[in-house]
Amino acid sequence: MNQSYNSQLLDNAVAELGKLPGIGHKTALRLALHLLRQDEGEAVALGESIINMRRQIRYCRTCHNISDKETCDICADSSRDRSVICVVENIKDLISIEATGEHRGLYHVLGGVISPLEGVSPSDLEIASLVDRVANGGILEVILALSPTMEGDTTNFYISRKLAPFNVEISMLARGVSIGNNLEYTDELTLGRSIINRVPYR
Amino acid sequence: MNQSYNSQLLDNAVAELGKLPGIGHKTALRLALHLLRQDEGEAVALGESIINMRRQIRYCRTCHNISDKETCDICADSSRDRSVICVVENIKDLISIEATGEHRGLYHVLGGVISPLEGVSPSDLEIASLVDRVANGGILEVILALSPTMEGDTTNFYISRKLAPFNVEISMLARGVSIGNNLEYTDELTLGRSIINRVPYR
Repeated sequence: MNQSYNSQLLDNAVAELGKLPGIGHKTALRLALHLLRQDEGEAVALGESIINMRRQIRYCRTCHNISDKETCDICADSSRDRSVICVVENIKDLISIEATGEHRGLYHVLGGVISPLEGVSPSDLEIASLVDRVANGGILEVILALSPTMEGDTTNFYISRKLAPFNVEISMLARGVSIGNNLEYTDELTLGRSIINRVPYR
Repeated sequence: MNQSYNSQLLDNAVAELGKLPGIGHKTALRLALHLLRQDEGEAVALGESIINMRRQIRYCRTCHNISDKETCDICADSSRDRSVICVVENIKDLISIEATGEHRGLYHVLGGVISPLEGVSPSDLEIASLVDRVANGGILEVILALSPTMEGDTTNFYISRKLAPFNVEISMLARGVSIGNNLEYTDELTLGRSIINRVPYR
């Protein structure tokens, strides 16, 4: 919808805001009018933070996490276990795992998963650089933390084959019933898997 | 929440996006990561459209609608009925009424409604300029199109008193049951009013 609001400036802002995922035309208009009511500094700070982020952001040379420097804070943190690499699809997943506080090793961000349907092949992902990291030695375990989907499983399989020649333990996320979820809402496949992979009661 | 994502640039953008109404921390992060995946031009266009809008926007000298010029497109439109002024609280309401296509006159944006609780007094609003417009002559009708709330009613009353000395018809929006709404969900006050103000069946 290209409704005009008597101002090209407002129209532009609404159009650009409306391109964001989950933000429709009405919400975009509400946000733009909100910004008009704020101090100029507020709106400029928002605009500049977006521009600066996109223009200046760097990716860690080692793990491809976002970073303002050549090496991200996680890779630079000497207190972390440098012998364990957790492989994730994207930065959002890295943030999620980091938020659990359960992984004290390093990461490796693939930048996606293998998906023939979407034209993503292994060469589009940071798999070769992962193999290089393992080949360089010092890595005892690689945790495959990809989504339990067809594409995730394919990528897990591909990576596990690539890492087979090296003396490194390969693990993956446990699959089973979600904590706090009623069993009746758990799908059959997950429930079946959680029976097969049952663990001793502690 | 001031969670850090290994990048001050990302943190800033998430913090700024999270200040927008209805956008929480998680959504802000999702939007920021989305912008990182886009071409640089996309993110810069969004940022600049916000900055330009806030910096350069003007308000119509006559009706206080937003405009890129001294006189907005509606006031400048010679095909509109210049003898009818529709008084609205804000630009959003102006856009809503304009979208109905039922008003072919001009507007007057108050910039709020009288609200002692929120410290908004008549002098904070564009009421004096409305009285001036009417005093200058040529206006036959003023339509009070404020929200049917306590504050809206107070403002309606104040404006009607201010315009009483002039030979101008003052009208207000019809109040009644919403079209398409089931009667059982209509509040008593509205339903009662819609009986009192019943109109001949056509």
